[in-house]
Amino acid sequence: MATDHLYALLLAGGKGTRFWPLSREDHPKQLLKLFSDRTLVEETYERIRPLVSSDHIMVATSRGLALRLSAVLPEVPNSNILVEPVPRNTAPCIAVAAARLLARDPDAIMVVLPSDHFVNDRAMFLDVIAAAVTHAEQGRIVTLGITPTQPETGFGYIRFGEFVEDPEHPDAKVRARHIQAFVEKPDRTTALSFLKAGRYLWNSGIFVFRADVILEKVRQHLPSLYEGVLELGHVQGEAEAERIWRDMPDISIDYGVMEKADNLCVIPAAFGWSDVGTWAALSAFPGDEHGNFSFGKVVTVDCKENVLYSSTGLLATVGLSRMVVVVTHGAVLVCPIDRTQDVRAVVEELRQRSLTEYL
Amino acid sequence: MATDHLYALLLAGGKGTRFWPLSREDHPKQLLKLFSDRTLVEETYERIRPLVSSDHIMVATSRGLALRLSAVLPEVPNSNILVEPVPRNTAPCIAVAAARLLARDPDAIMVVLPSDHFVNDRAMFLDVIAAAVTHAEQGRIVTLGITPTQPETGFGYIRFGEFVEDPEHPDAKVRARHIQAFVEKPDRTTALSFLKAGRYLWNSGIFVFRADVILEKVRQHLPSLYEGVLELGHVQGEAEAERIWRDMPDISIDYGVMEKADNLCVIPAAFGWSDVGTWAALSAFPGDEHGNFSFGKVVTVDCKENVLYSSTGLLATVGLSRMVVVVTHGAVLVCPIDRTQDVRAVVEELRQRSLTEYL
Repeated sequence: MATDHLYALLLAGGKGTRFWPLSREDHPKQLLKLFSDRTLVEETYERIRPLVSSDHIMVATSRGLALRLSAVLPEVPNSNILVEPVPRNTAPCIAVAAARLLARDPDAIMVVLPSDHFVNDRAMFLDVIAAAVTHAEQGRIVTLGITPTQPETGFGYIRFGEFVEDPEHPDAKVRARHIQAFVEKPDRTTALSFLKAGRYLWNSGIFVFRADVILEKVRQHLPSLYEGVLELGHVQGEAEAERIWRDMPDISIDYGVMEKADNLCVIPAAFGWSDVGTWAALSAFPGDEHGNFSFGKVVTVDCKENVLYSSTGLLATVGLSRMVVVVTHGAVLVCPIDRTQDVRAVVEELRQRSLTEYL
Repeated sequence: MATDHLYALLLAGGKGTRFWPLSREDHPKQLLKLFSDRTLVEETYERIRPLVSSDHIMVATSRGLALRLSAVLPEVPNSNILVEPVPRNTAPCIAVAAARLLARDPDAIMVVLPSDHFVNDRAMFLDVIAAAVTHAEQGRIVTLGITPTQPETGFGYIRFGEFVEDPEHPDAKVRARHIQAFVEKPDRTTALSFLKAGRYLWNSGIFVFRADVILEKVRQHLPSLYEGVLELGHVQGEAEAERIWRDMPDISIDYGVMEKADNLCVIPAAFGWSDVGTWAALSAFPGDEHGNFSFGKVVTVDCKENVLYSSTGLLATVGLSRMVVVVTHGAVLVCPIDRTQDVRAVVEELRQRSLTEYL
């Protein structure tokens, strides 16, 4: 495989308060340690590293997080940190990164990776990426679709069609499928029907494509973004760059490009994936014999199916069922698993009461 | 009222782990701040202070706690701190205190007060104590009985009989009753029948009697204790005192004396009382409009009837009902209100795992 031309773009600009109180405004999810003593962005980096050398790994993020990301990813050259002066969605930073890569390597192939997801089976992950790269080399835009394991209502879905014919790799272990449709987050009944139908995959937000191919699609479908990208190429000074970013459309690569492109395919994957969207998501992870997901110093008595996280000190629980308890330095959250979406309400309340030290 | 001869004995030797993690082995319940910025023993002291001068207040406690109690009760003379060299139940320390008081004042009247209880209406409390003193002066052993407000299964009960005739105080506002029986902690059905019967009171553990009267009863009913007390009176050296204490019977004043004495009476009282036996007990205290008892920096969203306590940092709760959450420096407890008795199991688990820093 032509890894000489392989690059990764880690999307690490997210803010996110759904992991409050562990995540804060200046300490978003990609910088959390949820599964090990390494942050999610470090885990993402380590996961792709066997296929992509450090100086081929780019990180897109906000001004406020750039230094922190450099600190946790010291092997990534500073010039590979792509700072978005104003928060925009995924299409702008992917297009800007593609343009930069093209200037460096006309044959660049990009693996776009959200930096705050969980992947269980790394070997299988790399296998799927490798297969995706073979398709990307042919000029296809490849997305990874996760085989659903439950009727999830929090994800977008992809309905797949026939296998993509690939004369050059007739025996590819992981096979790509044509995409019939992108489907919005379904209600529970619909999600159940998707699960039964067997032709739907979760949209993982992981993409593989050639830099020139994605940029051509941006030119076709998001011409104003394309112009901004060209302009950025010969701009001098931060103020000017910020103005250009400000004018870029605030749109995701999914809506802006994927759903309109014709050379798309999806590779079904089952490497154990989660977008780790809320504390509740952790309840699906391997836990103790009673189904408790625990992190840190936790003592349980007669507890089952809880998410118990302590980053400081001891957390002791008695008789709990399907609860989330998060202990951080200075703030503690307790909430039933089914109510984790409402953690936003706490953050809102803190804002109203000007308890900004906890935001 | 002859307050010149009135003394108080604060029983402050208790250990208690039921308020873990706020209470620790070296930081028992009487030293907790549950209702204000003062510890329970300070609140007990302040409560009786209008009737008893500081140098008439004695404090019985263990070796380990003596200095701490001196620190929170600086107005109590050190010579009034009665140290029990080995932990014994209430009868020995009450008898020893009575003997000491007699040597100082042959007419001494003692108010015996557990130091870790809650009293809501202080004025009414003092009124009841004053009435009890008038009976104690006549040589009666007076106990305070709390009018039950719910079918409590965690307390002993007192069944009362007719009014005590008191020719000297025919109009006493608070009237004493003869005691028909002391009743063990009942089951729920029995507790309900007690509540309906209207002739049962909670045994508060608050007593008022003359020092000479109680000591005479000790001589009659606990002769070995009486001998120990006499021996202590002319002993020199800590080792000798410790040996005598070690030989004293480990028995409560209730079992050892009250249930056998004949000159007893009870004064029914309704000043808003709780022995604050577990975290669950706090749920009965006045809370916010949703029935949440909160202490410290607490933010609730859609929560009702919880006990939420933070001695450090912010505690945020969403969608909780009838839960106990306690946040202390270094340890957090989460437990349904109905399971607070099982906090012992956590303490036991910590002991087994040698996590002694949390005990």
